[in-house]
Amino acid sequence: MTEGTFESRPLDALNNSRNKRVLVELKNNKQFVGKLKAFDIHVNVVLEEAEERADGETKRKLGVVFLRGDMIVMISTE
Amino acid sequence: MTEGTFESRPLDALNNSRNKRVLVELKNNKQFVGKLKAFDIHVNVVLEEAEERADGETKRKLGVVFLRGDMIVMISTE
Amino acid sequence: MTEGTFESRPLDALNNSRNKRVLVELKNNKQFVGKLKAFDIHVNVVLEEAEERADGETKRKLGVVFLRGDMIVMISTE
Amino acid sequence: MTEGTFESRPLDALNNSRNKRVLVELKNNKQFVGKLKAFDIHVNVVLEEAEERADGETKRKLGVVFLRGDMIVMISTE
Amino acid sequence: MTEGTFESRPLDALNNSRNKRVLVELKNNKQFVGKLKAFDIHVNVVLEEAEERADGETKRKLGVVFLRGDMIVMISTE
Amino acid sequence: MTEGTFESRPLDALNNSRNKRVLVELKNNKQFVGKLKAFDIHVNVVLEEAEERADGETKRKLGVVFLRGDMIVMISTE
Amino acid sequence: MTEGTFESRPLDALNNSRNKRVLVELKNNKQFVGKLKAFDIHVNVVLEEAEERADGETKRKLGVVFLRGDMIVMISTE
Repeated sequence: MTEGTFESRPLDALNNSRNKRVLVELKNNKQFVGKLKAFDIHVNVVLEEAEERADGETKRKLGVVFLRGDMIVMISTE
Repeated sequence: MTEGTFESRPLDALNNSRNKRVLVELKNNKQFVGKLKAFDIHVNVVLEEAEERADGETKRKLGVVFLRGDMIVMISTE
Repeated sequence: MTEGTFESRPLDALNNSRNKRVLVELKNNKQFVGKLKAFDIHVNVVLEEAEERADGETKRKLGVVFLRGDMIVMISTE
Repeated sequence: MTEGTFESRPLDALNNSRNKRVLVELKNNKQFVGKLKAFDIHVNVVLEEAEERADGETKRKLGVVFLRGDMIVMISTE
Repeated sequence: MTEGTFESRPLDALNNSRNKRVLVELKNNKQFVGKLKAFDIHVNVVLEEAEERADGETKRKLGVVFLRGDMIVMISTE
Repeated sequence: MTEGTFESRPLDALNNSRNKRVLVELKNNKQFVGKLKAFDIHVNVVLEEAEERADGETKRKLGVVFLRGDMIVMISTE
Repeated sequence: MTEGTFESRPLDALNNSRNKRVLVELKNNKQFVGKLKAFDIHVNVVLEEAEERADGETKRKLGVVFLRGDMIVMISTE
């Protein structure tokens, strides 16, 4: 999601972040950081080398995680 | 979203705000400000040069963010 | 939405309020007042000359706002 | 919705209440009373001569109101 | 919904309760009892001779009520 | 739902539990136990000889119950 | 879900975890661990040899469980 280069649809923008590290915030306020490997139109997301964070610190390391789209609030490049 | 010029459908109105700075308020009461780069029919939104705000002050700078539509309450021009 | 003149479908009734000032109440108890410029079948709504109100007093002036339909509880003519 | 005369589908039953005064209860516990003018398959509803009630007393008079279906718990004839 | 006679689909089972008294429990913990007159695939329900109950006692008598399906947790024969 | 014999789709697995006693846990933390008679793609479920349980003890006996799918968290063989 | 080998769609990634032990976290904060036997596009999931966990300790053993997709927050390989 480097600025200025992506298309007009939000999922195209997400596609620019594929294989890059992203921060994902959930409705339950949990934060996950990891390499964005996959997503779909429901915004289901798969992260590699993922970790859960709280207050900027790693809470647990998780490897590969599947996050259900309807729990996601925000995705940003780290 | 300058007044008086947009069409009768809400997404057409949003389109008038493309590339302009908007304020997005979420169901969890978080506020994001940034340049509206992309949106879709689910009201998924991508902001550039985004920042999270609380009480009118910048809480953190985020670059490019994807916000999931079902979390959005309101979008207004800043 | 003057009484007695609208059709049997709720969105036809909303259409009678187009370009008139309406009161919109949200699930988070926020109230917005403004001129109804656009709506769609999801009840996404765009208001012009909008303001947020609390206890009958203007809390902030917002210009043009997009309100996501799934947050809306009630719309009435002011 | 006079008993015994309506069809086997819930919306047919609602149709029997058209132009009659109904009580609508919402998920946020608010109650609205008014003449049922319109509804659709989402159970979006328009009431005329509507008022909000609490504890059996009129809280405010609202004229014509549009109530979003997904907020509705119950509709009964008054 | 007499045991042993209904089909393999849940709505077929509901159909066996048509015109019988049922107990309906809602997500807001309210209970309604009445004769099941109508339902649809969304589990919208119409009860005749309905009453709201709390702790096994009648709280109010309501005549005919429409209950929106997405609020329903459980329906059982009384 | 005996292990090892069911297909790759979750509803096929549920089908293996048909006519067996299952435990159903709901989003409101209620537990129902009964013989699984019917279910559909929304995970609406009908139980026969059902009872509500709390802390492993029977709270009330209910006969045949219809449970709306969107309230269900988990179904397991007892 | 071994890293680096799965496809670009989240459900393909889930497929890589079939027959492996996974950790499933729900919206109500419950955790289930078990062998992933089945899932579908709603992210409904069936686990074999499942157990519920809290604070890293087994709370109860459940055999085969069906978990409804809309309750799921995260799935990761254990």
